[in-house]
Amino acid sequence: MQNATIELLLNHRSIRKFKKQPLTDDQINLLVACAQAASTSSFTQSYSIIGVEDPSIKKQLSEISDQPYVDENGYFFVFVADQYRNKTIGDQNGADTAVLDTTQRLIVALGDAAFAAQNMAVAAESMGLGICYIGSIQRDIDRTAKLLKLPEYTFPVFGLAVGYPDQRPEKKPRLPRTSIFHKNQYNAESRNEELNEYDRRIEEYYHTRSGGQRKETWTGQITRGLGLPARMALKPFLEKQHLGRR
Amino acid sequence: MQNATIELLLNHRSIRKFKKQPLTDDQINLLVACAQAASTSSFTQSYSIIGVEDPSIKKQLSEISDQPYVDENGYFFVFVADQYRNKTIGDQNGADTAVLDTTQRLIVALGDAAFAAQNMAVAAESMGLGICYIGSIQRDIDRTAKLLKLPEYTFPVFGLAVGYPDQRPEKKPRLPRTSIFHKNQYNAESRNEELNEYDRRIEEYYHTRSGGQRKETWTGQITRGLGLPARMALKPFLEKQHLGRR
Repeated sequence: MQNATIELLLNHRSIRKFKKQPLTDDQINLLVACAQAASTSSFTQSYSIIGVEDPSIKKQLSEISDQPYVDENGYFFVFVADQYRNKTIGDQNGADTAVLDTTQRLIVALGDAAFAAQNMAVAAESMGLGICYIGSIQRDIDRTAKLLKLPEYTFPVFGLAVGYPDQRPEKKPRLPRTSIFHKNQYNAESRNEELNEYDRRIEEYYHTRSGGQRKETWTGQITRGLGLPARMALKPFLEKQHLGRR
Repeated sequence: MQNATIELLLNHRSIRKFKKQPLTDDQINLLVACAQAASTSSFTQSYSIIGVEDPSIKKQLSEISDQPYVDENGYFFVFVADQYRNKTIGDQNGADTAVLDTTQRLIVALGDAAFAAQNMAVAAESMGLGICYIGSIQRDIDRTAKLLKLPEYTFPVFGLAVGYPDQRPEKKPRLPRTSIFHKNQYNAESRNEELNEYDRRIEEYYHTRSGGQRKETWTGQITRGLGLPARMALKPFLEKQHLGRR
């Protein structure tokens, strides 16, 4: 059953340091074509992709995200959940567009953006490039939206930094299959033994990656994450954008 | 730049008729491993996958979705946005878990579920299998959640039907690249000429696929979709699940 694509998928690791070499237009267009080939809910294609080339915009997104590799990479994409296109089409045809502000349509648009992005990520890695998702463009969602001139009915979900890898990180071990994969019904039993063993593996992973500097388990990291400040601007921003209002 | 993976991505088409042959355990486990290898926000792995094998549960999901291929396929997965695991870990460690009910955490979990699912879709196609996403498990979200025994802090996002294709549909043409892909900033100008041309292509596609029975353009389909009943139960369901409350 093994094949080159499966091997590629199983060998994914995020890249956070890229060579200076920019992507070519052919590479960029092929990546976008692969993104567009992904499944899309009811064929609505409810997403957009913004290719950020302007150095000043990249720099500012990098400040918002607080990640240098938002600026330093081969190319930077932003994936946008997008019901604005559908709104425009509906308006032009004199249709009632009220449905676009429902939670259903928000979830559909988020899904379409993510399917497209993951296809692009896989395509990039197959071309020998590395990728890193950047959720932290949402740290200042209003500034990000303004920078990218996003109209109503749109929401910037994440960035995707792409480029030639300038590092070779180890693969990060994932949760045991049985923690993620349930048969027939959700198994809500606590899995302490399984998680303890996984914690040991992750502790070792961070130990190796940091040269002994970082000492953290997976459940420790999850618990620490619960204490980080949440991005409370997202809900009012969505409301302002007419997304997920009801 | 072309390679087998890119060719695979560009040749995606959804499959809505499968042979009776079920997937083997090895195939299922490999698909789950590929799903797990996808990127995940802040390494939180905020999703679960339910493998629906019980014929009665499959049958009922098929009724909810009103799609026969939810029941008739090689295997049926449901992807779940999942902050319940994080909730349990936080509780066990005596942490304040209030952050889990934020919109940020809901969006993260939806993204993690979609990245994993799209990886699985690509893996399946690389193995010669076909896939179809099933958003319509949300047509009766409360019944779906009850059937799958989903606890609080979880949300069933979509199903993924996988199996040996028993049809060979044409590739569905996607929007012109310039309709999806913007440079530096969102281009909100209307693109009537571009869309008119695309409408003709889609009209032809449906004409061919339906043997002359279906006459519909893409913008026509989008407009018709605006008039379909929306799933208004999603927002109260999320609220009940403690997701995206603020």
